[in-house]
Amino acid sequence: MSASGEDGLIARYFRPIATDRGAHALVDDAATLATDGEDLVVTVDAIVAGVHFLPDDPPDTIARKALRVNLSDLAAKGATPAGFVLTLALTEATDAFLAPFARALGEDAALFGCPLLGGDTVKTPGPLSISVTAFGRVPKGQMVPRTGAQPGDAIVVTGTIGDAALGLRLLQQGATRPTLRDIASVASLINRYRVPEPRLAVASALRSHATAAMDVSDGLVGDFTKLCAASQVTAIVEAARVPLSEGVARAIADGRFDLAAAMTGGDDYEVICTVPRERLESFRAAAVAVSVPVTVIGLVEQGDAPPRFVDENGEPMTFARGSYSHF
Amino acid sequence: MSASGEDGLIARYFRPIATDRGAHALVDDAATLATDGEDLVVTVDAIVAGVHFLPDDPPDTIARKALRVNLSDLAAKGATPAGFVLTLALTEATDAFLAPFARALGEDAALFGCPLLGGDTVKTPGPLSISVTAFGRVPKGQMVPRTGAQPGDAIVVTGTIGDAALGLRLLQQGATRPTLRDIASVASLINRYRVPEPRLAVASALRSHATAAMDVSDGLVGDFTKLCAASQVTAIVEAARVPLSEGVARAIADGRFDLAAAMTGGDDYEVICTVPRERLESFRAAAVAVSVPVTVIGLVEQGDAPPRFVDENGEPMTFARGSYSHF
Repeated sequence: MSASGEDGLIARYFRPIATDRGAHALVDDAATLATDGEDLVVTVDAIVAGVHFLPDDPPDTIARKALRVNLSDLAAKGATPAGFVLTLALTEATDAFLAPFARALGEDAALFGCPLLGGDTVKTPGPLSISVTAFGRVPKGQMVPRTGAQPGDAIVVTGTIGDAALGLRLLQQGATRPTLRDIASVASLINRYRVPEPRLAVASALRSHATAAMDVSDGLVGDFTKLCAASQVTAIVEAARVPLSEGVARAIADGRFDLAAAMTGGDDYEVICTVPRERLESFRAAAVAVSVPVTVIGLVEQGDAPPRFVDENGEPMTFARGSYSHF
Repeated sequence: MSASGEDGLIARYFRPIATDRGAHALVDDAATLATDGEDLVVTVDAIVAGVHFLPDDPPDTIARKALRVNLSDLAAKGATPAGFVLTLALTEATDAFLAPFARALGEDAALFGCPLLGGDTVKTPGPLSISVTAFGRVPKGQMVPRTGAQPGDAIVVTGTIGDAALGLRLLQQGATRPTLRDIASVASLINRYRVPEPRLAVASALRSHATAAMDVSDGLVGDFTKLCAASQVTAIVEAARVPLSEGVARAIADGRFDLAAAMTGGDDYEVICTVPRERLESFRAAAVAVSVPVTVIGLVEQGDAPPRFVDENGEPMTFARGSYSHF
């Protein structure tokens, strides 16, 4: 009896990248993860063609996004990556898809020190979907929660917001003949949508200084509203302070994009966190030391109303759609 | 801003069953799993409508199967359940599906001591699929591997083989007016397909006595062939010794089913393992003590050929299809 197609697929594409001892070369039913009294942080995020990525996105970027959206969660929780498993629901098993997909997955696993431990491959009439469960480690009891924000804390966000949302819009509009000046920026914005940069570099600083944190995946407005609800606080966020890349700022100035779309579009995979005032300078210094830009965008306040987002005139902003929801 | 549909869905259906401390009431991005120097065993299995269950199977049985196929892996690895996360890819979010699905999932989580820790819910144009990543604990270095079978070991299987395959066939044939005598048996066979019984009771005995083990999910013939390949051994299996329930034995005697189909059909979720001769009686006693029937069906031998399956006359059997493969 020859090896079945599924086993052959695993052997050909995934065994070469499953080099961690706990993966048992993918010949077993299960993987092992050694522990030493720490807390394991577990996160699960699925990406689906047509929802979280475009069906014609390159296979290598799909692989990277599937893993990185989970690494982004680990980063926001203050965790160090320990490994991941994946469920791959394929419409067909072609070398054209699987070879670059597995290669990129292996590269990212090595880059972020998060080894592939195991998985399951199933056939589906569609769409292509990839569910990743990732594990990280934190010292016992030190996962950075979503529930700890305190009145008086500063609201801090890493990097820039809205790039991925604008990148997606550019992708969906197709090639609209960008001027030469724009080309580098367009590629960079599209890359922000396709290949997020998990903010693992600030994980340790978050553990030391943040009272609450989460990653911005479904849009800053909706996600931060969830953080406030979980922490039973309210807040004021000044939209004018939300950090924007040059590309997004220019698109807004040109009327091709707007700040509300940047703040609700999602796919940022930046970290939003709350930091007590007295620890703000230490947090900022720790972030600068690992080359992660951080910006204060508002203040946590007592109350249970949803946070208020105000424009440059102090007027409340309203949003047609706070964050992405599947249902 | 009101809670999004996805958050509402989680709050309504899944928060009530996510009572473990590590689930953080599902308000966080991530779950935590406390550790104490043991090995965590990680397994991931997805079930897809039309492949692993029938689209019109009851929601409660779909939930139980999604969790139990993973618990079956943990059992075969000698692990004690510690928790699970799930990705639910729904075509639509109806109360008629989600209420019984979540209730049954919570009941099984409690029954098997395997709490729901977190998950992700995404919308898909279809089919409905559920991916579960389950965690178990074993003392450091003691996961029962697939790779340890030794020449001379007895081949042992728990329970009975072929019930689920016959149950699926009966389901697919629809109501074929079973005689009254058959009704209880038909229901029991269908239940074996829909709601597997993970053999967690023998996990400890497997750790103490088995050199290799796996669960039988894709068919005894194909799965045991994989175990031999992983262990770099061959074996002889006597089909006449494969344990059959009364229902399957009768269906074979009546010509409505055949032994080859029982041995290749899959969905058994029994454990097949290899046990050194000198430990066989201790293993049997340990299994009997937890009310799990075990049967010796063959012998591991030196060599690297696929295992031979022989009929009651000692003649080699051939199988059109050794085990289920998606590709």
